[in-house]
Amino acid sequence: MPCTGRDGFPADPAHIYLSAGASSGVNTLLNVMCVDKSTGILIPIPQYPLYTATLALLNATCVPYNLDESKAWGTDLDTIKKSYEKATAEGIDVRCIVIINPGNPTGASLSEDDVRAVIDFANQKNLVIMADEVYQTNVFVGKFHSVKGVLRQMQKENPGKYDSMELASLHSISKGMVGECGHRGGYFELVGFDPEVEANVYKYVSIMLCAPVISQCLVELMVNPPKQGEPSYELYNKEYTGIHEGLRERATALHKAFCQMEGVECAEPQGAMYLFPTIRLPKKAVDAAAAEGRQPDELYAHQLLDATGICVIPGSGFGQADGTLHFRTTFLAPGTEWVGSIVKFHQEFMDKYR
Amino acid sequence: MPCTGRDGFPADPAHIYLSAGASSGVNTLLNVMCVDKSTGILIPIPQYPLYTATLALLNATCVPYNLDESKAWGTDLDTIKKSYEKATAEGIDVRCIVIINPGNPTGASLSEDDVRAVIDFANQKNLVIMADEVYQTNVFVGKFHSVKGVLRQMQKENPGKYDSMELASLHSISKGMVGECGHRGGYFELVGFDPEVEANVYKYVSIMLCAPVISQCLVELMVNPPKQGEPSYELYNKEYTGIHEGLRERATALHKAFCQMEGVECAEPQGAMYLFPTIRLPKKAVDAAAAEGRQPDELYAHQLLDATGICVIPGSGFGQADGTLHFRTTFLAPGTEWVGSIVKFHQEFMDKYR
Repeated sequence: MPCTGRDGFPADPAHIYLSAGASSGVNTLLNVMCVDKSTGILIPIPQYPLYTATLALLNATCVPYNLDESKAWGTDLDTIKKSYEKATAEGIDVRCIVIINPGNPTGASLSEDDVRAVIDFANQKNLVIMADEVYQTNVFVGKFHSVKGVLRQMQKENPGKYDSMELASLHSISKGMVGECGHRGGYFELVGFDPEVEANVYKYVSIMLCAPVISQCLVELMVNPPKQGEPSYELYNKEYTGIHEGLRERATALHKAFCQMEGVECAEPQGAMYLFPTIRLPKKAVDAAAAEGRQPDELYAHQLLDATGICVIPGSGFGQADGTLHFRTTFLAPGTEWVGSIVKFHQEFMDKYR
Repeated sequence: MPCTGRDGFPADPAHIYLSAGASSGVNTLLNVMCVDKSTGILIPIPQYPLYTATLALLNATCVPYNLDESKAWGTDLDTIKKSYEKATAEGIDVRCIVIINPGNPTGASLSEDDVRAVIDFANQKNLVIMADEVYQTNVFVGKFHSVKGVLRQMQKENPGKYDSMELASLHSISKGMVGECGHRGGYFELVGFDPEVEANVYKYVSIMLCAPVISQCLVELMVNPPKQGEPSYELYNKEYTGIHEGLRERATALHKAFCQMEGVECAEPQGAMYLFPTIRLPKKAVDAAAAEGRQPDELYAHQLLDATGICVIPGSGFGQADGTLHFRTTFLAPGTEWVGSIVKFHQEFMDKYR
């Protein structure tokens, strides 16, 4: 029986593929879509490096498009167009655009308008959309707009216009309130895929036999949680809401702290499990990093780790606009007392290199 | 602390990589070894099709070598040499030889002499050996000779001579007496690998994050079973031996039945979970298959399935010497009463097409 729970539009089990986490799904889809260096895939920058690593392995071309930090890391259609046009002018066959929503490492949650604009662009250029939506339940501001839900809405509003759209929508048990990363479970749904291409996805998936059984059970529990009136609903709801609220509280506390820190700017927490603040470091810190053969944000992250035991990832690990520096932090660790130690470290770091 | 349990030679945890089953390990190793069509990998025929499928995906070249049915599906060095020489004469850079021991689909268990001959040849030609040893505990005749154990012995006997050998040895929780296929667990050990190559294996494995946690625990339980004197040893030993003996009994019953069947020849069961008998079918059956656009062994397998509910795989699915026909059967199903139904079907099939 088709499921309509998330988007209000049916999902057909015949087009849903279980995977060993979203990573395995991404790997499958990129393997099927990429031929060689001539194949281009539009990838948001900053991005979780699975994408660039897999494209490097497949010897395909990453076509980067920068997210717009001034719009809380939303997508900017002009930037996407320019990246697409530059790549096609160089003879690249751009086949797909990846959206990571909510974003890793940015923590952005895309507006419906942004999602609509990307769908429209992909439709014009005949691009597959690969929607990495593993953080879909980690949304703190507004609501999550799935590419599939928005696409189905656009198809309803404009009969015929978006009928040839191809969308792969990925989900995982590793994030959200489930957080069962170690079990390696997830799925992807193919929407509107050419049957011949989908047959190759099926073949590719078959070589790897199956997703781990326990993870398959966890996927089922995630997509079909206890419903109101069922015996475990109350406890489930209490735990689920508790985790969600805890993440929101820590995100807010961290954001508040970052806003007070000298030279730091940070968009309001919207989703995922991350904040990705800009940091402006003194020239002496930049020079000290260069002397050690490191990026300035790497120097900062290492010293933060040494001083506080808190591990953040330098923005250079995800890609960032030239001349900018960032770090990614999660707000997964319980409690908020550790937030103060970042503030204290930052002050000392700035004083040291001022 | 290095482990010496299986071979009497130490295994260093620093060179052991956990994988989501042996399939995932094979995928990793072939990805790192293969460049393009110019890379050749020696693959035994018949073989479990993971190898040919992965090479097709990587756009690398399968260099097939036939196993010797007259020697109970052992390796024949002359055949391997001829395949190697033919490929190198065509400009192929042959980098690796795959051994599946005990064999799938053949059920062969290689003699120490066969293993020594392959190691010596790989050493001369500077080939990596990929030893798919997932059935290492499923041995019914003689004993299992691991490539690693034999290599270490040869290195001891001939100081210096085999020092540059590179071996990848794979194991899995899916076979043996464990049989936990669905959990997707296994490992591979790299022996003597060039550190730069091993660094790339490490990087490749890292992209996929980790093997499923439950499967990691099962790997630990498999390689470190209860020891004599420990509380669970007796029960463990009883169950383990019971499963092993059950497999041996069914293999023997099936072999005995095959030996009585008209036009069927079958090597004595040695190992793995399979028998791979030759079948000689009447010309009318061959013609009937051709009329349906099928291989004769496919026709046979389909009719067997329809008549008895027993599923065997046609030899053409694994590759077989030209002009020969086979099928692969497992002896996993409990009981032996189903053996008689194969005998009955076979007689009726032969009578029908005589």
